[in-house]
Amino acid sequence: MESKSEQNEWSSGVWAHLTAVRQQSPLVQCITNFVSMDLVANTLLSAGASPAMVHSVVEIPDFTPHIHALCVNVGTLTPDWLPSMKAAAELASKLGKPWVLDPAAVSCSGFRLKACLELVKLKPTVIKGNGSEIIALSSASRGHTKGADSSHESTDAIEAAKSLALSSGAVVAVSGAVDIVTDGKQVIGVHNGTKMMQKITATGCSLAGLVAAFLAIDSSRALEATVSAMSVFGIAGELGEAMANGPGSLRMHLIDSLYGLDETTVLKRVNITRLG
Amino acid sequence: MESKSEQNEWSSGVWAHLTAVRQQSPLVQCITNFVSMDLVANTLLSAGASPAMVHSVVEIPDFTPHIHALCVNVGTLTPDWLPSMKAAAELASKLGKPWVLDPAAVSCSGFRLKACLELVKLKPTVIKGNGSEIIALSSASRGHTKGADSSHESTDAIEAAKSLALSSGAVVAVSGAVDIVTDGKQVIGVHNGTKMMQKITATGCSLAGLVAAFLAIDSSRALEATVSAMSVFGIAGELGEAMANGPGSLRMHLIDSLYGLDETTVLKRVNITRLG
Amino acid sequence: MESKSEQNEWSSGVWAHLTAVRQQSPLVQCITNFVSMDLVANTLLSAGASPAMVHSVVEIPDFTPHIHALCVNVGTLTPDWLPSMKAAAELASKLGKPWVLDPAAVSCSGFRLKACLELVKLKPTVIKGNGSEIIALSSASRGHTKGADSSHESTDAIEAAKSLALSSGAVVAVSGAVDIVTDGKQVIGVHNGTKMMQKITATGCSLAGLVAAFLAIDSSRALEATVSAMSVFGIAGELGEAMANGPGSLRMHLIDSLYGLDETTVLKRVNITRLG
Repeated sequence: MESKSEQNEWSSGVWAHLTAVRQQSPLVQCITNFVSMDLVANTLLSAGASPAMVHSVVEIPDFTPHIHALCVNVGTLTPDWLPSMKAAAELASKLGKPWVLDPAAVSCSGFRLKACLELVKLKPTVIKGNGSEIIALSSASRGHTKGADSSHESTDAIEAAKSLALSSGAVVAVSGAVDIVTDGKQVIGVHNGTKMMQKITATGCSLAGLVAAFLAIDSSRALEATVSAMSVFGIAGELGEAMANGPGSLRMHLIDSLYGLDETTVLKRVNITRLG
Repeated sequence: MESKSEQNEWSSGVWAHLTAVRQQSPLVQCITNFVSMDLVANTLLSAGASPAMVHSVVEIPDFTPHIHALCVNVGTLTPDWLPSMKAAAELASKLGKPWVLDPAAVSCSGFRLKACLELVKLKPTVIKGNGSEIIALSSASRGHTKGADSSHESTDAIEAAKSLALSSGAVVAVSGAVDIVTDGKQVIGVHNGTKMMQKITATGCSLAGLVAAFLAIDSSRALEATVSAMSVFGIAGELGEAMANGPGSLRMHLIDSLYGLDETTVLKRVNITRLG
Repeated sequence: MESKSEQNEWSSGVWAHLTAVRQQSPLVQCITNFVSMDLVANTLLSAGASPAMVHSVVEIPDFTPHIHALCVNVGTLTPDWLPSMKAAAELASKLGKPWVLDPAAVSCSGFRLKACLELVKLKPTVIKGNGSEIIALSSASRGHTKGADSSHESTDAIEAAKSLALSSGAVVAVSGAVDIVTDGKQVIGVHNGTKMMQKITATGCSLAGLVAAFLAIDSSRALEATVSAMSVFGIAGELGEAMANGPGSLRMHLIDSLYGLDETTVLKRVNITRLG
C-alpha cells in the first residue's frame, strides 16, 4: 500500500514536470513513422513542447545539436530510414541529449528486430513499447530469437522489462492496462489512461514523443520524467473519454485535455504506485 | 423492385459480417498512400480490425504470411514503393489471402496506369475505385490508352466494371452516389453513404481498407463481403453527417459511428439492391 | 487609417475569390511534407478546391500540365524529394501556372537552405513562411549565411520580406500575429486569425496550399489572391476558436468553418490594412 505522502510526492512531481515542459517548450526531434506524424506533433504542441519532424540523414549534423530530446520510432521502418535514426541517436547520445526508442512492432520482421537491437546499442535513455514488444526485444537482447506472442499484458512483461533495463542501461516503459516503468531495480506502475486509447492509431507513438519532451526538462531523472509523461497522457485520455462518443472524438478531446490540464485535476488524478 | 426477404437477407448479412470483424479482429496489412495512413488505420481500428502499415519490401517475406488480408493503394506511388506492393500482392495471392487494389488516381500518369495494370495481373480479390478510375483501368486493360474523363458518375461505370471484373477475375467495386459492386455477372447497388464524405480526404482509401477487413472474414464470398463493407461505411457516414457541421466534424463522427454501430441501426439502414 | 471604401473593396475581393475557388474547384498539386498531407488536403477540399498529392518525379511530366496551381513545402525534405520539387516548379513556371514555395524550417540545415535558394530561382509566384523563415531566406538570398533567430515576429520581417520580394520577383507572405503580404512595393497586413492556430501542426502548410488555390483563380493578381487566402483562413480560425476547447477541437472547427463560410460573415470579419 502506497503511503499518502509518497502519492503526494508523485503528484506534485507530475505537475512540476508538466509545468516545466510548458515553460521551457523543449525542441523534440521525432524520427517517427508515417502513420503517427500528425498526432505526435499535435500531442507535443498541446503539451507545450516544440516538435520537429526532421528525418533526413543529411540534416542531422546541422540540426540535432540544437534539439533538447529525440524520439525514434520504427513503425514504418525501411532500410533507407535506418541510417538517419542511427546517426541522430548516436549524436544525441554523444552530446548527452536524452532520447527515446519506440520499437513499434519489433517482431514483425527479422530486419526490424535487428534494427532495434542496433538502436538499443546506441544507448537510448528510455525504451517504450507495449508488452509484446518489450518481451520480444528483451528476449532478443539475451540472444533468443523466437518471436513474441502479441497478446502479453503489460504486467506479464515486468521481468522482461527489468532484464532489458539492466542489459541496455535504459529506463524501460511498458504501456498497457497498467503502465510499467523500470530502471531494472525500481518498478513503478502508472494506473492512468483508458482502454479506448488503444482504438486510436498512434497514441503509443505520441506517448513516446511526450516521454522525450519530459526527459528534455529533467534528463537526470529519467525514471521520474517517464512516469510523469505516462501519467499526464493517461489523465488526458481519462478526461477525453468522459467527453467522447468513440475513438474519433476521444482523439480530439485527448488533445484538448492535454492542452488544458490544470493543477487541481493533475493532483487529483495522478495514480502511481511502487510495484517493486 | 427488391423483395422484402431479399432486403432482409442483405441486412442480416451486413450485420453478420461486421460482427465477425469485431470478433476476429483480422490483421490487415495496408500499403497505402501517405495522405491516408492515419484515417485508414483509424477506420480499421474503429471497425474492430487490426491495421498494420508495413510497407518495406524487406519485411514482406516475414510479415505478410501472418496477415489475414492486404490492401494496396497507389495514391502517392513512387517507383521505390512498387516492388513492395507487388511482392506483398504476389505473396498474398500465392498464400490464398484476399487482397484489395485501390487504383487511386490511376490516370494521373502513364507510370501509374502501367503499375496498376501490373498489379491487376497479380490477381486482386477486389478492385475498388471511383467511376473514372474504374473506367480508365478497364479501358486500359482492354488495350485502350486514352485517359479517362474524371467526371463519370458511378452508374455510368457499370459496363466498365463488369468488363474489368471478367478480364481480371476480381470483384470490382465503384464508389459514387450509388456504390456498384460486380463480379462481372451480378451487379449490386449500395445506396448508403452521403455526398459530404467526398469532402474528406482518404475516405475512399479507408473504404478500401475496410473491404480488405471484411474479405478477411469471408473470403470465399468476396462480392457479399465487399457489399457489406461498403454499406457499413456508408451507414457510418449517414449517422456521422446527421451530427456534423462540415467535413471536419463528419470525419470525427464517421469514426465514432463506425465504432458504435448496433444491430438495430444496421438492419434499419442497410440499403442494397440488385441492379443486374 | 483605412478608408471605409478601401475596406469594402478588400472584403468584397475576399468573398469574390472564395466564391471563384468554390465554383472552379482548381486542381492544386501539393508536394508537401509527411506531417501535413492530411490537413492540407482537407483544407483544400473544405475550401472547394481539388488537392492532388502527386510527388513522384516520374509522374510530373504527365500530371503537372493538368494542374491549376502548385504548392511546394520542404517541411520533411530529403535529397530524393528535391528533384520532384524542382521538376514540378520548373514545369509550372514554364507553363505559366502559379506556384507557392513554403520554406518550412529553412534554417534547420545547410542542405535545406540551399534547396530553398534553388527553388527560389525557379520563380515561385508566392513565398510563404513565418517571420524567421522569411528573414533567413531573405538574408541568404543576399549572400548572408548566418542562421536566423527563430523568435522574430512577423512585423519585424517586413523589410526582409520586401527585399526577398524584390530580389525573387515573388509576392512574399509572412504569417504571424499580423500576416504581412508584399510584392516589394505595397505592404498589406491581414489581421485575421488566432494565436491558438499555431498549436496545431500543419496550419502553416495548409495556408500555403490555400494560397495556391486562390492563385489558381486569379493568377494575374497574386498579391490580392494571397491576401484573400490568408484572410479566409484566419476567419475560419476565428470562427473555429469561438467553438473550440483546445487545439484538437479547433482543428476540426477550422475545417467546418472554412467549408461553411458565408458572405455576411466574410464581409463582416475581413480585416485587411495597407501598411506601406
